[in-house]
Order: sequence, then C-alpha cells, then structure tokens
Amino acid sequence: MELPAIVVNFKTYGQVDGDKTLELARICEEVAKETGKSLIVCPPMVELSRIAKEVSIPVFAQNVDLWDGSVQTGATTLSEIKAAGAQGLLINHSECRRKLADIEFLIKGAKDLGLTTIVCSNNVETSKASAVMGPDFVAMEPPELIGGDISVTSADPGIVEDTVKAIKGLAPGVKVLTGAGVKTKKDVEMAIELGTFGVLLASGVVKAKDPKEVLLSLAEGC
Amino acid sequence: MELPAIVVNFKTYGQVDGDKTLELARICEEVAKETGKSLIVCPPMVELSRIAKEVSIPVFAQNVDLWDGSVQTGATTLSEIKAAGAQGLLINHSECRRKLADIEFLIKGAKDLGLTTIVCSNNVETSKASAVMGPDFVAMEPPELIGGDISVTSADPGIVEDTVKAIKGLAPGVKVLTGAGVKTKKDVEMAIELGTFGVLLASGVVKAKDPKEVLLSLAEGC
Amino acid sequence: MELPAIVVNFKTYGQVDGDKTLELARICEEVAKETGKSLIVCPPMVELSRIAKEVSIPVFAQNVDLWDGSVQTGATTLSEIKAAGAQGLLINHSECRRKLADIEFLIKGAKDLGLTTIVCSNNVETSKASAVMGPDFVAMEPPELIGGDISVTSADPGIVEDTVKAIKGLAPGVKVLTGAGVKTKKDVEMAIELGTFGVLLASGVVKAKDPKEVLLSLAEGC
Amino acid sequence: MELPAIVVNFKTYGQVDGDKTLELARICEEVAKETGKSLIVCPPMVELSRIAKEVSIPVFAQNVDLWDGSVQTGATTLSEIKAAGAQGLLINHSECRRKLADIEFLIKGAKDLGLTTIVCSNNVETSKASAVMGPDFVAMEPPELIGGDISVTSADPGIVEDTVKAIKGLAPGVKVLTGAGVKTKKDVEMAIELGTFGVLLASGVVKAKDPKEVLLSLAEGC
Repeated sequence: MELPAIVVNFKTYGQVDGDKTLELARICEEVAKETGKSLIVCPPMVELSRIAKEVSIPVFAQNVDLWDGSVQTGATTLSEIKAAGAQGLLINHSECRRKLADIEFLIKGAKDLGLTTIVCSNNVETSKASAVMGPDFVAMEPPELIGGDISVTSADPGIVEDTVKAIKGLAPGVKVLTGAGVKTKKDVEMAIELGTFGVLLASGVVKAKDPKEVLLSLAEGC
Repeated sequence: MELPAIVVNFKTYGQVDGDKTLELARICEEVAKETGKSLIVCPPMVELSRIAKEVSIPVFAQNVDLWDGSVQTGATTLSEIKAAGAQGLLINHSECRRKLADIEFLIKGAKDLGLTTIVCSNNVETSKASAVMGPDFVAMEPPELIGGDISVTSADPGIVEDTVKAIKGLAPGVKVLTGAGVKTKKDVEMAIELGTFGVLLASGVVKAKDPKEVLLSLAEGC
Repeated sequence: MELPAIVVNFKTYGQVDGDKTLELARICEEVAKETGKSLIVCPPMVELSRIAKEVSIPVFAQNVDLWDGSVQTGATTLSEIKAAGAQGLLINHSECRRKLADIEFLIKGAKDLGLTTIVCSNNVETSKASAVMGPDFVAMEPPELIGGDISVTSADPGIVEDTVKAIKGLAPGVKVLTGAGVKTKKDVEMAIELGTFGVLLASGVVKAKDPKEVLLSLAEGC
Repeated sequence: MELPAIVVNFKTYGQVDGDKTLELARICEEVAKETGKSLIVCPPMVELSRIAKEVSIPVFAQNVDLWDGSVQTGATTLSEIKAAGAQGLLINHSECRRKLADIEFLIKGAKDLGLTTIVCSNNVETSKASAVMGPDFVAMEPPELIGGDISVTSADPGIVEDTVKAIKGLAPGVKVLTGAGVKTKKDVEMAIELGTFGVLLASGVVKAKDPKEVLLSLAEGC
C-alpha cells in the first residue's frame, strides 16, 4: 500500500449495493490511474471477491471474524479474505468493535497471511493500545465525528497530533491514518501535515453527488 | 425454490476458499442440470456476489446482520444480499445464532424484499418458535449431529416427525427441512418420507473426495 | 406468584444504587402488606442476594446468562439466582435481548430449578414464539413505549388484545403481562381488562417522586 | 489494596452458590486476619452487595458492563458496583472478554469512582495494550493454563518475565499480577520473584477440599 493513501470505506450505504459497488470501485480506480495517487477500496463484504477480481487497485475487507479456517457459518475468515483477492482489512471499526484479545489474534493471523492491517481506534489511549500490538496502521477516528461534516483535523487537530506522538514513542513502526469527517482536499493536506500517512473516509465519497470530483480533490491533497 | 431441495452450505471450510468456491458451485449447477433436481448453494459471505453472477441455480446467503440500509461497517444487510443476486438466506444457523427479536425482524424484512428465508432451529421447541414467526422454511438441526457421520433421520427420526407435526399444527404454511449429518441418498429419502421438503447439508458435500458423486447420489434420493 | 401481579423492574437506574435498592424494595413490601396485592421486585443484579434476604415479597432476577454451573467469570447462572433466594427471573428484556436457542434453554433450566420465568417480547409475533416455548409468563412490551409516558394499553390496546388472543390459541397455559409505559391505576385496570394478568414496569415507580404513592395507586388497579 | 495480594475469583463454581459464597469469603477473611496478608475476594455477581456488607477484606466485582448509570436491565454499572461496597473489579477476564474501546472506557470510569482495576490479558501483546490504557493492575493469564494444575510460573516463567519487562518499559506505573494455574505457596513465591505483585486464582481455592489450608499456604508465599 503506497503512501500517503486514501482508504474509501463503502460501509453498507444503500448507495453502493450490488452493481453500484462496482461503479464506485471503478471510479476510485480511474482516479488512482489519472492522478497516480494511492486509493484503496473497502466494498461491502458480500461484494469483496467480485470487486477484487474487477479492479486493479488494492481491495480491503471492512471486517473479519476469524483467523483460521475453523468451521463456521456466516462468518468470514482471514483465509477467505485472502483467497478472495483482498490485500488487507480494517479491524475494529467504530461500527464493528472487537474484543482486545481478538484484535491481537487477528493482527497476528493477518500478518501470517501477508494481509495489511488497519486497526481503528477512538482516542489516544485506544490508539496506543492498538499500536503496541503491531498492526501496519492505526486509524484514529473519534466516533462523534464519524459521518459528520467537520473533519477531525479541524475539530480536534490536537488529538491527531497526540496520537501520532504517542505512537511514535511506543511503537515507531506503526503508521497513523486520519479518519472521521474527512471530505476535502484541505482535510487531506492537514492530515498529512499532522504526521499521518493518509485518510480513511466513507460518507464524504459514498454519499457525494459526484464521487469522482470529490476523489480528485482528495487526491490533490496527497 | 423448487421442492424437494438440496441446500448446500459451504460454511467457511478451507476446501472452498476463493476460486474453489466457484468450482463447487459449478459442480452443484451441473448436478442440478443433469438430474433436474433442485440444488441451492450458500457460498462464503465474501464470495456471495461473485457466485450469484456465475451460476444459474439459486444462491442463498449463509447469514445476514441487518434489515435495512442503516449505516454499518463490516455487517451485511438484507438489501446487499438482494442486490448481490441472492434469492434467499439462512437465518440463525447453529454457528451464528440470532436473538429472537432479530430473527423476527429479519424474516419480515426478507419477505418485504422477496427473499426466501430458512430459519435454523435446534429442537422441537425452537422449531415451533421459529415457525410461528412465519419464515418460508424451518431447518431443524440437532447441534450434536451437525458435522457428524449419522444423519438425524437415522439417529433420531422421532425428532423430525415431532417437528413436522408440531409445525403443521401451529403454522401450516411453513415447510420443514432436515439438517445435521445428511450424507447419503438414503438420508434424503428418509427426510422426505418423514414429511420434510429437503435437506440442508455441508460437510457431507464440501469435505467429500468427490463432491459430484455425493451430490448425484443425494439427488437420486429426491 | 399470585395474580394479578405488579412486577417492578429496578433496572440500573442511579436512583436505586446500593442502599437505595433496599429502601425501594421495602416500600414495595409495605405496599404488598398494606393492600394484600401481589408485588414482585427485580433489583440490580449485584443486589439480588442481599434483597432476597431482606424482604418477604418475591424477588426476581433481571437477567441470567447460563443454565447450569459451568465455569464462567462475571456471568450469572440459574443456580446462583436460585441459591441467592430469587423465585424467578426476567428473560429477554428489551435491554438484554437473548438468542432464541438460549431463551428456550433457560426456560427449560429455570423450570427444572422451580424458578418462575417471564419472557419479554416486543410484538405479537415474538410473543407467540416466546409462548410456544413454554415459559410461565410472556410480557409484551413494544420497545418504542418503554420508559415513556403513555401506557401500551392506551397507545395500542389492539396489540395487547392480539397478543392475548394469539397466545390463548397456541399455548393456553402461558399468561400474558402488560409492559411499557405503565404508570397509573387506570393502566393496570386496562391491562387486566384486556386479558393480561398484571403489569411489568420500571420508570413509573423507580423515577417517581413518591414511589409509595404510585405503588398504592397501581395496587388499587389490581 | 496492599501488596503483594492474593485475589480469589469465585467464578460461577457451583461450590460457591448462595450461602457457600459467604462461607468461603469468611475463610478468606480469617486467613487475612491470621496471617496479616492481603486477600481480595471476587464473589458471584448476584452475591456482591451481600458479601461486601459481611466481610472486612476488600471485595472486587468479577465483571462490569457499563460505566455510568445509563438505563439498562440485567447489566451491571460501575456505579452499582461502587454502591454495593466493592473496592475494585476485574475487567476482561478470559471468560468475559471485552471490546478494546470498552476496556478503556471502563478503566477511565472506574478511576473516576475510585475503584481499583485489574485488567486480565492473555499474552505479552495484550498485556502491553492493557497497560498503556492505565489500569492499576494487569493480570496476565495464558488461557490454556487457566483452571489447570500447572502454574504459569512453572509452565512458562518467560512469559511472566517478558510481560513484567514490557510493561515496565511502556507504562511503569502499572503493576502485574500472575494468574492461571496458581495453587501452591511455591507458585506465589515464584510469582513475586518474577517481578509481579501477587496472584489471581480461582479453582485452586474454590475447588480445594480444604480451602483454608490452601489459602494459608498461599499466604506464606507472599
């Protein structure tokens, strides 16, 4: 995953059901090609394999349930994510929080399979806790700003700086991403200025009238 | 969904990761075409959309999390399942049990979207409870027999008969499927003889050395 | 449990922490003695054993996690509830919904220990499902009315009647309680008139300025 | 909480239902008085308030669900634990694992109420993650050794040393406790020698034929 990166989480927005998932993934791919910047897409779980076959930019899973191939129904294993063609995954997103022990277990399992891990966190303390377990990235997203109109970089730049500083001290190999409320070129610029390696965003792109326009603007900020 | 039916749950078996999911789904499709019998496949969640595009037999989801398009990450909505091309879904499988209130909510939501529902249950009492909430099917599977070598139709035919009888009394429109340990033509024959409309199985096919051979034999039992 | 009954759920309201739990339980006991009516208290889980030792009216648990004495930390078993001196328990309250299979398991286990079960439900369909599993009581509480100012008997008397009628048809031995928004003598009278055997309430008593006055009024409605 | 300490988790063992909880808590109290050593008891949740009233040694909760007094049924809040008379609590025990975000939230909330926190962890990585969130204690317990006959101090002394060392580097104010398989005086001695401040144990005491004898021996090891 090249840096800085724009990670687009499609969530379960009705705007990206079925074929519309593919449309948006293709737009992300176009913007990546046109601008040379690094874009990653996280499609709905049921579209993961299909999207990974259809686009050339990295595809990440929004979630995972289990490390190995232990027999379950309706759950998703790391092996399935890998076999589906994904290059990485989100762990512990605000909307699917995980147990501490499971986060550690999944980070280790993902590493064994060569999958890149982005662990989401909600404040400085949980960011530190996430970082010392050794994921590739920590994406700090204050829950009260997720889905809103003000970027964390404007609403609370201090929390981003504190997170970057704390993680540098405790786990220097782990990179920080900025999440929550990211919508504009300026938000991306500030995220990078504050010492993070990119942004994780959702509604700003998925719910935009013209997602391509938004993505082009975000890419300019990188 | 034509009856009697053979519903093949791929679970998360390592045997059916990635492209191997497609291979097994194609084998099921072949057997359906060659025998004229009704086969349904339930692929891993991340392969759902891909498989629904690739095979002509009905594809069901193994699970669902939410009814409507409310915004979540890593969860799966009924709308996504529908948009992915699935025709129905399992609810409350032994390996992903659901809350009572959620089962009812999901049955209603699936009906609104025209998705066929198979609610799994573990004994006569929970089969009755499932049936009175109005799904299309109840698949009774004693958990201790799931994944084993003895079919419920041999181990405990009485529990199948009792379930069929109880549901006939309380919710005559709901059909029963037989699950747990089903592996042979004879198991399917007995399932139908006991008054059920088909079988739900997993390991008997997925872990078979020659899945096609097993499926052809099961189809003969219909 | 004598009928009709007034079941007071203390929930986790700050008003009833620690010694204040005992105060309210004693008030309920006084009202029961003074009026000769049947009152049941459901104190916070950590106060259960203490309250059961201190008051003579029936004490019910708000919740339970496990049937038998299997080894867990921080969970509550049916055996512990029984040993603490409780006479029964709520299962599947709106604020701690249970899996279908667990509800059935807990009903059966409670019966084996001689504990009275009140299964909470949210609409006619889940009430039917709860009833066919054989608890002693089903308490129907539309979630949108819980904690509010309008009793379900005023807001939607039809849903209470439909529940009573449906359960009479499917599981005649199971009695219905009325919950959600109950606060006055008139609410209790209507609950009984609609064919239910009492009320389950919380905020109407716990948050009242003068809980004794409210309880005396409710008791008059019985 | 005086150190070194012996923390006795009663779990939900049938041996300590109801009045038997009080018997064992009294034995712990006797041993504390007779030996002058620090013993802490964690009774079943439903006995918490009663035991806190009956014994003079510190009582800890085995678990907690919520920080503040938000309205729930069947859950346990930090305020209730405090009001019940407990001095602290276990968080994230192997048998009731918590989400990362909730652990952080509960540590902070407990601190605000003056409750001592022991966060359980399962390996060096999760111990580090727990420690950087600032609890009073981290109790490292490899799950495969919990309830067994070999103490972690014998089976894997290196993991205890590594945990102590890692936490000293990252969060020097946080103290480590040793858990899993602790049963004898020698286990306690080794736990202290390895740099931890006491032990967390359950079956070794609760299931002992003569708990007092075991406790006296453990106290000698302090």
